[in-house]
Amino acid sequence: MPQLSPVSVAFLVFPNVTQLDLTGPAQVLSRLGNVTLNLVWKDKMPVPTDAGFPLLPTATFDEIQQADILCVPGGLGTMEIMPDKTVLAWLRKIAADAQWVTSVCTGSLVLGAAGLLKGYKSACHWASIDQLEYFGATPVRERIVEDRNRFTGGGVTSGIDFALALAARIRDEDFARFIQLSIEYDPHPPFDAGSPDKVSPEILARYHKMIAAAAPDRVAKVKAIADSLGF
Amino acid sequence: MPQLSPVSVAFLVFPNVTQLDLTGPAQVLSRLGNVTLNLVWKDKMPVPTDAGFPLLPTATFDEIQQADILCVPGGLGTMEIMPDKTVLAWLRKIAADAQWVTSVCTGSLVLGAAGLLKGYKSACHWASIDQLEYFGATPVRERIVEDRNRFTGGGVTSGIDFALALAARIRDEDFARFIQLSIEYDPHPPFDAGSPDKVSPEILARYHKMIAAAAPDRVAKVKAIADSLGF
Repeated sequence: MPQLSPVSVAFLVFPNVTQLDLTGPAQVLSRLGNVTLNLVWKDKMPVPTDAGFPLLPTATFDEIQQADILCVPGGLGTMEIMPDKTVLAWLRKIAADAQWVTSVCTGSLVLGAAGLLKGYKSACHWASIDQLEYFGATPVRERIVEDRNRFTGGGVTSGIDFALALAARIRDEDFARFIQLSIEYDPHPPFDAGSPDKVSPEILARYHKMIAAAAPDRVAKVKAIADSLGF
Repeated sequence: MPQLSPVSVAFLVFPNVTQLDLTGPAQVLSRLGNVTLNLVWKDKMPVPTDAGFPLLPTATFDEIQQADILCVPGGLGTMEIMPDKTVLAWLRKIAADAQWVTSVCTGSLVLGAAGLLKGYKSACHWASIDQLEYFGATPVRERIVEDRNRFTGGGVTSGIDFALALAARIRDEDFARFIQLSIEYDPHPPFDAGSPDKVSPEILARYHKMIAAAAPDRVAKVKAIADSLGF
């Protein structure tokens, strides 16, 4: 087999990231062969996640000046970093030279806050996708959205689908199929409830109640962040 | 909403674990409410994973003496821990009182090595499932296999399906649907290649070549481990 071209992947990691947003694509992309993958943050102290255990950043913003793939995962922690000028400046710097500028879930709101989705179509978690408009992006309710070199995934588990599509673009479709086989991604969820149009009003109400308690006034806050950033 | 009963989850973590085997169910189970979740290993130094970044154990074997759910993820690192008497003794101790004894992917081979699947049906990664027989378990090629209080998942991404089924048993089906909605698990893989019967002979050969290079003679080695453990 010929030598595979090197691929560098930089994930933004931050407190209260949704772990699976990051691990789904990391597991897929790490199997591209000849890959260097980093979790990048301000320092290398463990950051809490919403999956009950912390993640350890592998590099700081100063240490990562370039990446072929930039990926921003989501989670409620995005509320804290969306207005963070240090985070946004690093994202803009890496995005300027990256081959692919990507996100999973509400990570697209952070790309949006950095000005990186203005005039682009983008995916997001179904419950937050409308907020993309505050940053000049066009919401598209799909699990995988590609617009020029922006490649965004929908909520949480969409990151697996998204990363397989990205793998096909970076290597080829059979390489992506090989990765899919290796992770036995032949999904058969025991329930059919992965989208708001597939659940009862009671389950939908439970979700909205949970998110309102976990992140009060989040829509108004995102709008205020967008305003403060000059969108 | 009435107070949810507390649930403690102990994941075995180890060098060269497959990250997504662990994070899939951790992300789901951490949303059960009133959950304590630990990644347990011999010490708390970062352990390398096969996804390009390390994980940080949150507790040592000595610190975790009981758990409602025991879960062993898979990965090539299972080859090293299958014969490890310290690991196997801890698994037996936790399993003795656990409500659910579970695994994802080749984690079932480790449960098998600990003697915890003798006479049980079990799932495993498709490429390793035959090896369950060395430990007296009955392989079942499904993504979710339940036999009494053993609840096992197939390869890697099966851990998400498996954990949703387990969530329904621990809370109820609507609670599992609520979690599924929250992680937008409405999978639409861009390819249909998640099972060996769905790929070309070339892709299957590529997989076997990769695994043979990554873990030479692994089937014979697992057989030798089973023999040495007295199966």
